[in-house]
Amino acid sequence: MTETFRHLITLENLGPTIITRILDRADNFLQHGNDSQLLAGRTVLNLFFEPSTRTRTSFELAARRLGALVVNFDTAHASTSKGETLIDTLHTLEAMQIDALVVRHKQPDTPGFLAHHAHSDVAIINAGDGNRAHPTQGLLDVLTIRQQRDDFSALTVVICGDIRHSRVARADIRALKALGVGQLRLCGPGSFLPDEDEMPGCIIYPNFDAAMEGADVVIMLRLQVERMNSDELPDTGAYFRDFGLDARRLKLAAPECLVLHPGPINRGIEIAPEVADGPQSQILRQVRNGVAVRMAVLAELLNPANPRQPS
Amino acid sequence: MTETFRHLITLENLGPTIITRILDRADNFLQHGNDSQLLAGRTVLNLFFEPSTRTRTSFELAARRLGALVVNFDTAHASTSKGETLIDTLHTLEAMQIDALVVRHKQPDTPGFLAHHAHSDVAIINAGDGNRAHPTQGLLDVLTIRQQRDDFSALTVVICGDIRHSRVARADIRALKALGVGQLRLCGPGSFLPDEDEMPGCIIYPNFDAAMEGADVVIMLRLQVERMNSDELPDTGAYFRDFGLDARRLKLAAPECLVLHPGPINRGIEIAPEVADGPQSQILRQVRNGVAVRMAVLAELLNPANPRQPS
Amino acid sequence: MTETFRHLITLENLGPTIITRILDRADNFLQHGNDSQLLAGRTVLNLFFEPSTRTRTSFELAARRLGALVVNFDTAHASTSKGETLIDTLHTLEAMQIDALVVRHKQPDTPGFLAHHAHSDVAIINAGDGNRAHPTQGLLDVLTIRQQRDDFSALTVVICGDIRHSRVARADIRALKALGVGQLRLCGPGSFLPDEDEMPGCIIYPNFDAAMEGADVVIMLRLQVERMNSDELPDTGAYFRDFGLDARRLKLAAPECLVLHPGPINRGIEIAPEVADGPQSQILRQVRNGVAVRMAVLAELLNPANPRQPS
Repeated sequence: MTETFRHLITLENLGPTIITRILDRADNFLQHGNDSQLLAGRTVLNLFFEPSTRTRTSFELAARRLGALVVNFDTAHASTSKGETLIDTLHTLEAMQIDALVVRHKQPDTPGFLAHHAHSDVAIINAGDGNRAHPTQGLLDVLTIRQQRDDFSALTVVICGDIRHSRVARADIRALKALGVGQLRLCGPGSFLPDEDEMPGCIIYPNFDAAMEGADVVIMLRLQVERMNSDELPDTGAYFRDFGLDARRLKLAAPECLVLHPGPINRGIEIAPEVADGPQSQILRQVRNGVAVRMAVLAELLNPANPRQPS
Repeated sequence: MTETFRHLITLENLGPTIITRILDRADNFLQHGNDSQLLAGRTVLNLFFEPSTRTRTSFELAARRLGALVVNFDTAHASTSKGETLIDTLHTLEAMQIDALVVRHKQPDTPGFLAHHAHSDVAIINAGDGNRAHPTQGLLDVLTIRQQRDDFSALTVVICGDIRHSRVARADIRALKALGVGQLRLCGPGSFLPDEDEMPGCIIYPNFDAAMEGADVVIMLRLQVERMNSDELPDTGAYFRDFGLDARRLKLAAPECLVLHPGPINRGIEIAPEVADGPQSQILRQVRNGVAVRMAVLAELLNPANPRQPS
Repeated sequence: MTETFRHLITLENLGPTIITRILDRADNFLQHGNDSQLLAGRTVLNLFFEPSTRTRTSFELAARRLGALVVNFDTAHASTSKGETLIDTLHTLEAMQIDALVVRHKQPDTPGFLAHHAHSDVAIINAGDGNRAHPTQGLLDVLTIRQQRDDFSALTVVICGDIRHSRVARADIRALKALGVGQLRLCGPGSFLPDEDEMPGCIIYPNFDAAMEGADVVIMLRLQVERMNSDELPDTGAYFRDFGLDARRLKLAAPECLVLHPGPINRGIEIAPEVADGPQSQILRQVRNGVAVRMAVLAELLNPANPRQPS
C-alpha cells in the first residue's frame, strides 16, 4: 500500500519513504521533462499574505507546467482585508472548487489551521509560515544534496546564520534528519541560536571556523538586515567577519563542500561573491530544483491515484 | 428563433426566457462538468476599477475553466490613470482583439457607457457598477433558489439591509420579478430603504420580525461598516439587534427557509454565526453557483452560435 | 543561411532583412490567425520595473496567443527590492528555465546589461529602457506604414514632440532608416530637439507647419505632461497651438497622410480629437499591429529552428 499525505504543512510528519518518493519524482521531472497534462482541469490558488515574488513564481511555474490553472489571489484587496475571517475565505475558495491552496503567512501554523478547517478535499501547501516551517525549501535542499552525495549518514552539514528565527533552518533540519544525516552543526551569534532543547541531536558551534572543519555541506541563511543595528547585533561588516562565508573559510571544509543558500543572497554580508559565484555554489541549482520539487509535491497531492513511478 | 443578447449590463432588459436559459446552462455545467475547450482562442479581460478579489476570481475561474485566455488589467497603473479617457482605453482593448470585457466601476452605468461606445463585437459584462446593477449576482441568487424551489410564484422573499445603496438588492429584485416571484418584502433602517416609487410591487417592512413571518427565502445584505457611526446610523450592536438574522428570527420564517448572503459576511453584524454556518445557509452554494453562472453568461455571449442545450 | 538574432535590445543592429522578416511574419499572423501551439511549453516572463499596463498586456497577449506560459513578475515586491542585485535576479529566473524575459526599466541599457550577463539561452526583449530604445514600437510603426505604402524611399515622415527624451522617436528613426525612408523631419520646441549630431540624416524643423508641408506620414509623440510648467516650457495650451496636430495642419500634408501616435494620447494637447478619431488616424491599427509584431518577435526568438515563412 502506498503511503500518502493530504496536505503539506510541515516535514515533521513525513517519513523518509514519502520524502524519498517526492525527491524521486522531482528528479524524474528534471530528467524526463514535464508532463504538461498531468494536472489539466485542476486549480491551484496562491494565497500569499507575505509578498514573495520568488517563491510564488516557483509555485506558479510548477503548477502551470503540469497543466494546472493557477490564480494569484490578491490578499491586499481580498475580503480578509474587509473583515472576513480566514475560515470564511477558505470556505469561499473551496466553494470555487480550488484543488490546492498554496499559503504563505507570517502567523505560524496558518496553513495547519486552514488544513484543519477545510471542508473539501483541497490540499493545503505551506509556502512558509512565520519562522516555523517551509517544507518545500527543506525538500529542495535535500534534493540538491542528494543529487551529488549518495550517503546522508556520512555527511556533516553546517547551518549558519539566524537559526532561531529561520523557517528554512527548521525545514532543512527536519529533512536532513529524516534522511539520516550524519552530523548537524548549527552556528551563529548567540541571539540567533535556538533554545537548547528545541533541536535535539544538533551540535551548537559558536565559532564558524570550527564549524566548517571537515564539513561536507554548508547552508548559509539570509540575514534579515532589518534585524541588524539593534542592541544585540553589531553592524553587517562585523557579521560578515564572524559569520560570513568567504573563500578562506570554505577551504576549512572538506574538498568540494557544497554551499547552499535559499536566496535572495546579501553579497558581502552572509556570503562573499567569490563563494556565491564559485564552483561549489549550489544556489542556482537550488532554484531549479525548487520548481521540480514543487511539481512533485503538487503531483503527489493532486494526483495520488496515478503516481508516475521513477524508472 | 433563439433570443440573444450582446452585452450583460443589467437584468432589466432580459426576459424570463434568456434568464432561464442561462440558469439551465449553469446547472448543466454543475452537473456535467466544464467544457474546457468551449472558449479556446477567446480573450476575456478583467477591468476592475474597484478592487474585488472575490468577484474577479470567480470570473477568472469561469472563463479559464472554459478555455479562454484571461488577462487582469491593472487599473491602478493603467493609461486611464495617465489621463487617457475611458473610451480610448476601450478602443485600445478592442484593437487588441478582446472578446469580453468584465467591468467593475463605482460610477453607475460605466458598463453601459462602454457597451454604447464599443466598435467591435466585444461583449461587455457588468461585474457591479456603483449601487446600480450586478446582474451575475442576481442570476446566481435565483439559480440558488431555483435549485431548491420549483415554483417562484409561491415564494415570499425578504431582502434585508441597505437596500437603497445595494446593487445586489436591485439585481435580485429584477431577477426574482422576471421569474414571477410571489411576494417581495424589503426591510432595513429608514435611511436604507428605497424611494417609494423606485421598486414598485415590493412591500416595505420597517420591522424585521414582521418581515420574516412565513418567509421562504431571506437575502441578507452585507453592511458597509464604513457607513456606520454617522449621524443617521447607530452602532453595529444596535444594527444586529434590529436587523441582524439570528436563530430566533429565522424560526419566524417558513420551515427550511433559505438564507442567502452575497458575502463577504460580517459575523455578528448582519448575520449570526449559527445562521451563517447552519443548515439553511446557502452562502457557499451561492459562491459555487457564481462560477457556474458566470461560465453560462460567458458561453452565451461568446459562443451564441453553438449553445449547449440542457438535456 | 538564415540571419538570426538572440535578443531584441535595439533596432540598431538589425538589418533590413531581419526587420522585413519580422514584419512579414506579423502580417502573416494578422492574415492567417495565430498558431496557438507554436510556443507551447515555453515560458515568457514580464519584468516591468516601470508600470505599463498597455505594453505589458500587449506582450502578454502575444505570448499567450502562441501558447506560451506567461508570468508577470511583480517587481514592487521582488527580491531586487530586498537588495538582490539585478544580475542575481536574472540568474534566478534563468534557473527557473525562463525562455524569454520582457524587460522595461527606466535605466537605459538595462536590457542590454541583462543580455550580456545571461548564462542560459534566455532571450531578452527590450520593452522600453529609459529614453533609449523601444524596438517593438519601432517595428509596429513601420509595419503600420508598410501595410499602406509600398515604397519607403518615396516617403517623407515627420516626427513631432519631445524627440530628445523619446525612446519611441529613436526606435522609429532606426526602423525607418533601415527600410530606406526618403526624408525624415524632426519637429518640436527647442528643448525637445536632439543634439545636432545624434540623429544624422534627419532634418530639424522648428516650425510644425513647415514640417507638415507635403508629409506622407506624421508620428506624434505623447507629451509627458509632468515636464510642462517648468521654466523651459509653456503651458499645454501653448504647446497645442505650436506643436499640436489639428485638422488645419493635417491639410498641409500630402493627401491621406498617415497619422501615428504610440498612445495613450493626450487629447487637445499633442493631438486634436478630430484627428485622433479621423480617417487618417492609425492609432488603433498600431495597437492591433503591436500584438502581431510582438508575436512575430517571440516566434523568431523562441522558435528560430522552425520559422513559418510568409506565403
